[in-house]
Amino acid sequence: MNTAKQRIDALKNILQQAKVDYYIVPTADYHNSEYVNEFFKMREFLSGFTGSAGTLVVSSEEAGLWTDGRYFVQAERELRGSGIVLFKMDEEGVPTIKEYLENHVGEGQTIGFDGRVVDASFGKDLEKLFEGKNVRIVYDQDLAASLWEDRPAMPSSKLWLVPAELCGETVVQKLARVREKMAEEKAQHLLISKLDDIMWLYNIRANDVECNPVALSYTLISKEDAVLFLQKDALTEEAKSYLDTNKILYKDYSDITEYLKNCEIKGNIWCSSSDINYTLYKIMQSRAELVDKANPTEQMKAIKNSVELENIRKYYIEDSAVLTKFLFWMKENAGKISMDELGVSKKLDAMRAEIPGFLDLSFETISAYQSNAAMAHYSASEEHSDKIEAHGFYLVDSGGQYTGSTTDVTRTIALGDITDEMKMHFTKVACAMLRLANAKFLYGCTGRNLDIIARQPLWDCGLDYKHGTGHGIGFILNVHEGPHSIRWQYKPERGETILEAGMIVSDEPGIYIPDSHGIRTENIVEIVKGEKNQYGQFMEFRQLTYVPIDLDAVDIQYMEPSDVNLLNEYHAQVFKKLAPYFDGAELEMLKTATRALEI
Amino acid sequence: MNTAKQRIDALKNILQQAKVDYYIVPTADYHNSEYVNEFFKMREFLSGFTGSAGTLVVSSEEAGLWTDGRYFVQAERELRGSGIVLFKMDEEGVPTIKEYLENHVGEGQTIGFDGRVVDASFGKDLEKLFEGKNVRIVYDQDLAASLWEDRPAMPSSKLWLVPAELCGETVVQKLARVREKMAEEKAQHLLISKLDDIMWLYNIRANDVECNPVALSYTLISKEDAVLFLQKDALTEEAKSYLDTNKILYKDYSDITEYLKNCEIKGNIWCSSSDINYTLYKIMQSRAELVDKANPTEQMKAIKNSVELENIRKYYIEDSAVLTKFLFWMKENAGKISMDELGVSKKLDAMRAEIPGFLDLSFETISAYQSNAAMAHYSASEEHSDKIEAHGFYLVDSGGQYTGSTTDVTRTIALGDITDEMKMHFTKVACAMLRLANAKFLYGCTGRNLDIIARQPLWDCGLDYKHGTGHGIGFILNVHEGPHSIRWQYKPERGETILEAGMIVSDEPGIYIPDSHGIRTENIVEIVKGEKNQYGQFMEFRQLTYVPIDLDAVDIQYMEPSDVNLLNEYHAQVFKKLAPYFDGAELEMLKTATRALEI
Repeated sequence: MNTAKQRIDALKNILQQAKVDYYIVPTADYHNSEYVNEFFKMREFLSGFTGSAGTLVVSSEEAGLWTDGRYFVQAERELRGSGIVLFKMDEEGVPTIKEYLENHVGEGQTIGFDGRVVDASFGKDLEKLFEGKNVRIVYDQDLAASLWEDRPAMPSSKLWLVPAELCGETVVQKLARVREKMAEEKAQHLLISKLDDIMWLYNIRANDVECNPVALSYTLISKEDAVLFLQKDALTEEAKSYLDTNKILYKDYSDITEYLKNCEIKGNIWCSSSDINYTLYKIMQSRAELVDKANPTEQMKAIKNSVELENIRKYYIEDSAVLTKFLFWMKENAGKISMDELGVSKKLDAMRAEIPGFLDLSFETISAYQSNAAMAHYSASEEHSDKIEAHGFYLVDSGGQYTGSTTDVTRTIALGDITDEMKMHFTKVACAMLRLANAKFLYGCTGRNLDIIARQPLWDCGLDYKHGTGHGIGFILNVHEGPHSIRWQYKPERGETILEAGMIVSDEPGIYIPDSHGIRTENIVEIVKGEKNQYGQFMEFRQLTYVPIDLDAVDIQYMEPSDVNLLNEYHAQVFKKLAPYFDGAELEMLKTATRALEI
Repeated sequence: MNTAKQRIDALKNILQQAKVDYYIVPTADYHNSEYVNEFFKMREFLSGFTGSAGTLVVSSEEAGLWTDGRYFVQAERELRGSGIVLFKMDEEGVPTIKEYLENHVGEGQTIGFDGRVVDASFGKDLEKLFEGKNVRIVYDQDLAASLWEDRPAMPSSKLWLVPAELCGETVVQKLARVREKMAEEKAQHLLISKLDDIMWLYNIRANDVECNPVALSYTLISKEDAVLFLQKDALTEEAKSYLDTNKILYKDYSDITEYLKNCEIKGNIWCSSSDINYTLYKIMQSRAELVDKANPTEQMKAIKNSVELENIRKYYIEDSAVLTKFLFWMKENAGKISMDELGVSKKLDAMRAEIPGFLDLSFETISAYQSNAAMAHYSASEEHSDKIEAHGFYLVDSGGQYTGSTTDVTRTIALGDITDEMKMHFTKVACAMLRLANAKFLYGCTGRNLDIIARQPLWDCGLDYKHGTGHGIGFILNVHEGPHSIRWQYKPERGETILEAGMIVSDEPGIYIPDSHGIRTENIVEIVKGEKNQYGQFMEFRQLTYVPIDLDAVDIQYMEPSDVNLLNEYHAQVFKKLAPYFDGAELEMLKTATRALEI
């Protein structure tokens, strides 16, 4: 069982015995989380493909792996010799998994998957696809489980409580608001499966998913009760006492299915089919009418309260100061001492770890030199870490988890000579970020209205970046959270969220030139109310990130006078916020790095 | 029966006899057209309120009239003494019609309306509102008809054919495309009730609605047949011969309901419930499964073909030349000769009528001086037409129907002294229009992405305009058409349309300061393909309107250098396009009006 080929063949045998014709192995935990723990990496175990996104479909005829453009090269390499066919998603002529199944699965055949790692929406789509076609869907077993002998244990870290002075709102208050929403939606029960929503609601955290301070858990809320499902090891005495005090019942994580099958249900159940897994969804569906909408906690969590905001503002400045010192060190030492991508990222991680209140990184630091920065989701590793020299661009996207904030920031710096085109690109990206951060807009706007403010300086010269402009960020939680975002594409099936005061969002335009260079400048901003007049309530952004934008890479010939003003105003603020953290030669460097440009 | 009170009382008597408790009289023809012919102005006849928008609800207890903010003052004046209660739409605490009915209509009661003048969506909403509540909806009679003794005749103008050399596509080709779409949607029949869609499809026009060159008509299309319902008087010998040649069957307009009840139906029927009236909808519903989507003709009509575009471009230049001459005359003569809003608009209308190919105005000219221009939908009349003097702003929004185009354009000009604030406002509006017209964007954008480009210069200083930024325009058809638009508000229930090459759209930002001044600058632009590269297909706008922007009202201190460049480039184009139409002193004026500003 040492090769993927052997594992796939073994799985084919199991499928034959179980009378399953097509078996689907996605990349997900039981909660459709963005990052998954080692325990859940079954697709990686079976196929040998280590990318973060991919789905395996195995039948007696063929095994296929679907992944996206970020991973085509890597998947081709890692799948070599496995016999697994690579399906390059979104390439012309390549079927989606649903299309593939539609074309292959015949009358009387069976599709199987572990219903706990497939979200309900996908399961429902399959049901619809094969409606009236005599195709069976079995989802009650992890058929590949027996093949994985040295499977890591299910993560089960200890729960910790967010200190009362950092919450800004007690669990009792939060539950009251959730129950109000339930009454509005005429739902007698609410099942939440989204881990960060559960953490937010109960003011608890843990460490079951890398960089995401969450515990594997579920919760079922009714007018009278709140039941929290947690692993036994998670429950410290302190946690038990806290839950008891707040009248929150707790049960074992693995009891969820039996509980849902047998508990008393009166009336409708609210659960979000894009978050909940198919197994739980089918149980819920058999028990009551479902209200299929996003969890009420998602919007509540996104609007930070004043205590959260106060801490967020404070930590973003400390985080900014450390990143600025790191970038100064990079500019000073590039070419003088030997450095490589992984080495310097470890240095930054260590510097960040010195900030009082530091808990963890909020995601694996992206440290990319020159053309590596043009690759989406590039990550240096022990096997591949390029040397950094005294020319070209270096990009670093990083952030921390602190007892009081989750940060995220990207800067690109020139480490010596760069071409005029690189300067032009850098300047356009800086203008894009600053224009969006300084936009005023009427209340009612969503990210789809605002995205073009960042893209326009790029679109004007035929450039673009193939990612969203902004995402929400958690409070000591996931670095990516919804429901709001800043994106431009029209997707009728995807609802939009009005930008509300108290939300925080990233502002991260970029330019990526394959085999040459990659630039991204990312600040996090807070949404605040501006002037209210006869036209309505105006809204504005307020900077949270205060890190200099490398003036060595700025050329004002590519800026409007108003852009230069925005840059100068931003740098004046950066100096004001960061100066208390700097002295001596470093303070002089800060002064120079934030000097006003003349128009 | 000379007063509204008498007419409402008489209607109450009829309702009592007919056992109808609540009777609704909207403002619509049988096709939910934007403008309605005199024959359909029943609400105006009954209530005495002459505004273009309003709905009357009459019960034994009360008569109420719902209208929007444009008409509050006028409605209050015109309803005085009628006993009709004015419901100011969108004001706080004022119920919508649906809320009013929900609160008033009791068990066992009956709601009535003429189902031909109520669109199916509204009827469906009422059904849903009173589902399971023992409330009857009767819609088969125009109960007020007998009260209106001197009712104008139903309009019935003669059909005319769009000359073959102007169509760019024959009816046979258009029908083939429509049938392809029907096959895609698995619809065996398509019922179209939208008048401009029908005119476009058959390459016919008429004059049944003021300024809209349409004939009252319906059409039912199947794979084999196309049946066109027209009034007898519309059918000239030429039209009959044309329809016969193209194998289009024609029947009498008034036969539609009987025909739909009895014709052979095989399979699904496609009809758009937001266009079709409730009476027809109920017949359709009783006969087959409905495909409720926008007519396929709407999108097809919006994308102009090359012959249409060629004519549109040509006519927009001729129309621009005439408007420019009128504006020069205004600036020359204001204060020297006596002029008033209505008088000068008649002069402009007469000048436009001299353009070869002129058919009609495309809407009633808006000619508004100073604070009148701040009122949305202000229209000077014989009773009220303000004198125009040699100071302040004059706004004119106008357009023509030509054998080859439908035009729409707005300019605001300074007739002498204006304040610095007015200059600032004028300059911001000019920048707003020019920035949007010069935007480059990736294919896939809808008007919701782009709207903010026009609004941002205004939002930046806490200003806004309470109307959309852009609408589509017909080809020898309605001056307002969909499905695309440029608006910013998020309305999940309203689909959006991607901007496609060949669409034309208005770009009309404005600033309106009550009791002071109103500014709007409106160009029409064509959507064209730009560069295609690794990022996708870029799209651009191309100007159709070439009328100087009054430099006397521009102050470059409120512009970025790039704005000045855009204005200068636009004016250079204006001079190039219009010069052939000017000579002598007028040509000198054109030169001055389009001179380049120095940055």
